[in-house]
Amino acid sequence: MGKQLSAFPITPCGPDGRVDEAGLRGLLAPLREAEVDSIGLLGSTGTYAYLSREERRRALEIAVDKVGGRVPVLVGVGALRTDETVRLARDAKAVGATAGLLAPVSYTPLTDDEVFEHFSVVARESGLPLVIYDNPGTTHFSFGPELVARVSRLPGVIAMKSPAPAASAVAAHVERLRQAVPEGFSVGCSGDWHVTEALIGGADAWYSVAAGLFPKVCLAIVRAAERGEAEEARRLDAALEPLWVLFREYSSLRVVYAAAAILGLTEAEPPHPILPLPQAVRERIAETLRDLALS
Amino acid sequence: MGKQLSAFPITPCGPDGRVDEAGLRGLLAPLREAEVDSIGLLGSTGTYAYLSREERRRALEIAVDKVGGRVPVLVGVGALRTDETVRLARDAKAVGATAGLLAPVSYTPLTDDEVFEHFSVVARESGLPLVIYDNPGTTHFSFGPELVARVSRLPGVIAMKSPAPAASAVAAHVERLRQAVPEGFSVGCSGDWHVTEALIGGADAWYSVAAGLFPKVCLAIVRAAERGEAEEARRLDAALEPLWVLFREYSSLRVVYAAAAILGLTEAEPPHPILPLPQAVRERIAETLRDLALS
Repeated sequence: MGKQLSAFPITPCGPDGRVDEAGLRGLLAPLREAEVDSIGLLGSTGTYAYLSREERRRALEIAVDKVGGRVPVLVGVGALRTDETVRLARDAKAVGATAGLLAPVSYTPLTDDEVFEHFSVVARESGLPLVIYDNPGTTHFSFGPELVARVSRLPGVIAMKSPAPAASAVAAHVERLRQAVPEGFSVGCSGDWHVTEALIGGADAWYSVAAGLFPKVCLAIVRAAERGEAEEARRLDAALEPLWVLFREYSSLRVVYAAAAILGLTEAEPPHPILPLPQAVRERIAETLRDLALS
Repeated sequence: MGKQLSAFPITPCGPDGRVDEAGLRGLLAPLREAEVDSIGLLGSTGTYAYLSREERRRALEIAVDKVGGRVPVLVGVGALRTDETVRLARDAKAVGATAGLLAPVSYTPLTDDEVFEHFSVVARESGLPLVIYDNPGTTHFSFGPELVARVSRLPGVIAMKSPAPAASAVAAHVERLRQAVPEGFSVGCSGDWHVTEALIGGADAWYSVAAGLFPKVCLAIVRAAERGEAEEARRLDAALEPLWVLFREYSSLRVVYAAAAILGLTEAEPPHPILPLPQAVRERIAETLRDLALS
């Protein structure tokens, strides 16, 4: 199997936390057309942590209806409580998700043993294939190689999404994970501005925020890396640097909300307390998208 | 007004997240008898983040019924979404809480402006007096002096709970907060093993996990600090060092769950994925409590 691009769209909602069905369908249509390898619905960018169980189920039903059979749907099933996580994973399986993205969401900091047990219970009691979702920037939990080795051997755990470190460290990072997991286990990366080097360095997948809005250019990077054309992948990635600058400065989530509005896809705001970016920043984003021929 | 002790009990629940009413009443009785200055219900130790709105309301109803009129009840009203936080704060006001403990719970990391707006909306739309609950270990957000200055001037924001740094830095920390807030605003500290020095250094209140189970010795420390008897306060605190060692090693939350079971108050486990401590550690805790004459 070649390298995979998973596109993570936002989940447009009203101020009351209800999913905007038309808005979500409008965001999914170009991802289906571009033939991304999967959709990462209700990831961190999809604000799963802020939505009720009912709305998460609704978002998945809409996505499966829109792209099901053509594009696999991964869906965030993380929650603070283990029992709630099991319920979400069962919902995901019942509605037709291909796999669940499971982040060790925490309030009280968790130990390695607690995270292992959490994954073990959710995998066993839901029957949903799981992707280890390592996102220390939001969960404040980091997976070390020893825990990766244990969790990746649980029945039903099939892949890992790991934050890519800076270019100089990324190949060693991917190799360390590869050593930890069983043969055939998919090791993928997130952190858009570092992922091209991760792909060149051996990563199997890119879990991408940018691809939620700009799937074509992201697919071009993945396909170039897959063909071993490292310089072409790097050239395409370097051209996106003005977008990565914005992601680093304002967070990818806030930037893609503004970008989706600029593209005319949805006027939805992120769930408060997260606020829309100020007008001056939105204008800078609009200018960047024009310069990059992304709008 | 003298220095205040706020006692933070655990919230005993079944595996399904339903509050155990008899268990909670049993934990509150000794706090009422000891005449602590307030109860910090549904703090981080009270696992508010893991409970439904309905169960949080029930816990508060039980507490107000048990101690209301004798001991003020502060109650955690934090949630990821601003609208949900407003609902929780309105519930708290309707049921009879004295004030709300508001932590900037986050998944997506928040900016200072977002936290300011969050506090502003919750204070205005609920009418509940609010305590700024600064707990970077769980929220992963830290209040700098500039934001403290802004939030502490919002109508309805009355006090702050700040994590006490190590002894050598604590007096300067309290003084820096004192400079930031308006006159008469209460500056209190959490982090049990550093708080005695904070009280000696000028803090108005101790938000205490230990006091949720051991109110008398904690009250003795607060009263000694209030009378200016620094050496007596330090002597009492130093005697508790074996307990602080356990808190630092296993987290105060996990230790007080084990301690509550050892004291025969409740067999409740923390909400999973948080796990009960292993038997060997529980035996060490039991031994420590015996040595300290706390059991």
